[in-house]
Amino acid sequence: MSIFITGIAGFVGCNLAATLLQRGDEVAGFDNLCRGSTRNLESILGHPRFAFDAVDLADIDAYRRALTRLHSRSPVTEVWHLAANSDIPAGIGDPGVDLRDTFMTTYNTLLLMRELGIGTIAFASSSAVYGDLGDRNLTEDTGPLFPISNYGAMKLASEVAISAALESYLDRAYVFRFPNVIGIPATHGVILDFVRKLKRSPGMLEVLGDGTQQKSYLHVDELVDAMLFIRRQAGDRLNYYNIGANDEGVTVRFIAESVVGRVAPQARISFGQGNKGWVGDVPKFSYSIAKLSGLGWRPTLGSSQAIRKAVNQIAEQESGN
Amino acid sequence: MSIFITGIAGFVGCNLAATLLQRGDEVAGFDNLCRGSTRNLESILGHPRFAFDAVDLADIDAYRRALTRLHSRSPVTEVWHLAANSDIPAGIGDPGVDLRDTFMTTYNTLLLMRELGIGTIAFASSSAVYGDLGDRNLTEDTGPLFPISNYGAMKLASEVAISAALESYLDRAYVFRFPNVIGIPATHGVILDFVRKLKRSPGMLEVLGDGTQQKSYLHVDELVDAMLFIRRQAGDRLNYYNIGANDEGVTVRFIAESVVGRVAPQARISFGQGNKGWVGDVPKFSYSIAKLSGLGWRPTLGSSQAIRKAVNQIAEQESGN
Repeated sequence: MSIFITGIAGFVGCNLAATLLQRGDEVAGFDNLCRGSTRNLESILGHPRFAFDAVDLADIDAYRRALTRLHSRSPVTEVWHLAANSDIPAGIGDPGVDLRDTFMTTYNTLLLMRELGIGTIAFASSSAVYGDLGDRNLTEDTGPLFPISNYGAMKLASEVAISAALESYLDRAYVFRFPNVIGIPATHGVILDFVRKLKRSPGMLEVLGDGTQQKSYLHVDELVDAMLFIRRQAGDRLNYYNIGANDEGVTVRFIAESVVGRVAPQARISFGQGNKGWVGDVPKFSYSIAKLSGLGWRPTLGSSQAIRKAVNQIAEQESGN
Repeated sequence: MSIFITGIAGFVGCNLAATLLQRGDEVAGFDNLCRGSTRNLESILGHPRFAFDAVDLADIDAYRRALTRLHSRSPVTEVWHLAANSDIPAGIGDPGVDLRDTFMTTYNTLLLMRELGIGTIAFASSSAVYGDLGDRNLTEDTGPLFPISNYGAMKLASEVAISAALESYLDRAYVFRFPNVIGIPATHGVILDFVRKLKRSPGMLEVLGDGTQQKSYLHVDELVDAMLFIRRQAGDRLNYYNIGANDEGVTVRFIAESVVGRVAPQARISFGQGNKGWVGDVPKFSYSIAKLSGLGWRPTLGSSQAIRKAVNQIAEQESGN
């Protein structure tokens, strides 16, 4: 009996796998190793209760062969579907990236769950499904849902493919709408960008936008904890939760100053114009985690503490390069 | 300069095309002729301002060739994207149908609009995007959106692919959430089913479910009128409207009795159990058209009048067979 994770070599996947192994589960996972890396799995490769295969989930034939083989050796009881394109700007340039790596991986996962009779899915969705609703308080039941990035669109398309599947063959689904998640192993994101920029030119950090853009951040350790809490506690057929920090978030200026303070205290920070970093980026939003709080879970770190922890970890990670 | 319609040989497409030609537009359209038929275009094939091509829009290469040729002859100013799988139960059996014919046709349409620089899309969405929200009043801003059919899921996935495209290259979009639409040429739906059942066995009409299932219905003539009204009057970049009758709808029992009355007055009606016709069918919902009323449009026929009109038209259509 094993828990199967897609995108297991990615940022969240490898952290989830390590936590599940620690608590005694049998864990198997696939990854196309496009953005994920087996380096992220170094600490668990070889673990007796762990299995990994490099599989492109957008290739249904390869995916079917590999999952059928895995399932016959150790029946998969639930699927944690984390595989996705995690690079939002890439999906603006080429919508095919989000179509293939986010939506079609979900579609194929559902197809195989139906074929193999696996009834439970946990899905990594995103706050990007809400699009830009201005200052509105974003609860899970907020509408309308008009994402402004292909990333958000294909996450929402995946959510609704799951909800339709629940009506006909799935038993149970958990939809987690992720906030901005930080921590290690960092593969992308604003902190890593800033750290690398400063390593290249330690005298000056150039920031896209005017630095007033504000978001809340959650550390990946807490994200994993929240997902497992919801998986344990929520009892509906379709369980959908915002996961996030319990605060208004921090500004890009705060992040820039934190990174400069840790990596290159002498550097000047130069801000650009406007409060959007790139097309499809949502400037500020208020993201409610009241539903998750009601279930009984709260983060232990606020956004600013999570940023400081992640800045230290990412600076450390990059210092070896 | 032409208006381009996908799914033009389908039920709504052929009615829209005829109306646009009547008002003087140049109209071109593609259809894969899988559910649509050139018989539906008989009255307009040969019209000097009309062009039709049989093209599978799920085949991007064929679609690109055909649309590029059309666009170079007569620049397409806007796209009315109506092509979709219209058979909800088919998509329960094989989710690939809705993926290919509903979502991928949208995805490919957007891809080509980007390549060819066509900025305006009007999209036939569906009340099925709302899923089953019980007795809630369904306004355009209602959430959460968890469709219970692949049909609804792929319509919603299409909506959000459009909203993401608006953020980066589209100029303007019109999203029409269709109610149950009736009229001719009828290709599927409850009235046609009942008429055909009665032609096969004129003594008895068997109805799925207990007949209490209630929906509102709009005649296709009014649907086309409402879409063109919204296209003319709505001025946002993203204009999304429920279109429907201004009433609580009619029951399946009412429809069955209307069809029996017109086609086989002596027939008995036999009802089944429960108020769901099939998996993925939403038993009853309250569908608000307040936003559309606010824009200034109202249907002239209520659901019951629309049913009677359509029953007469469909009985007539089928009498020739």
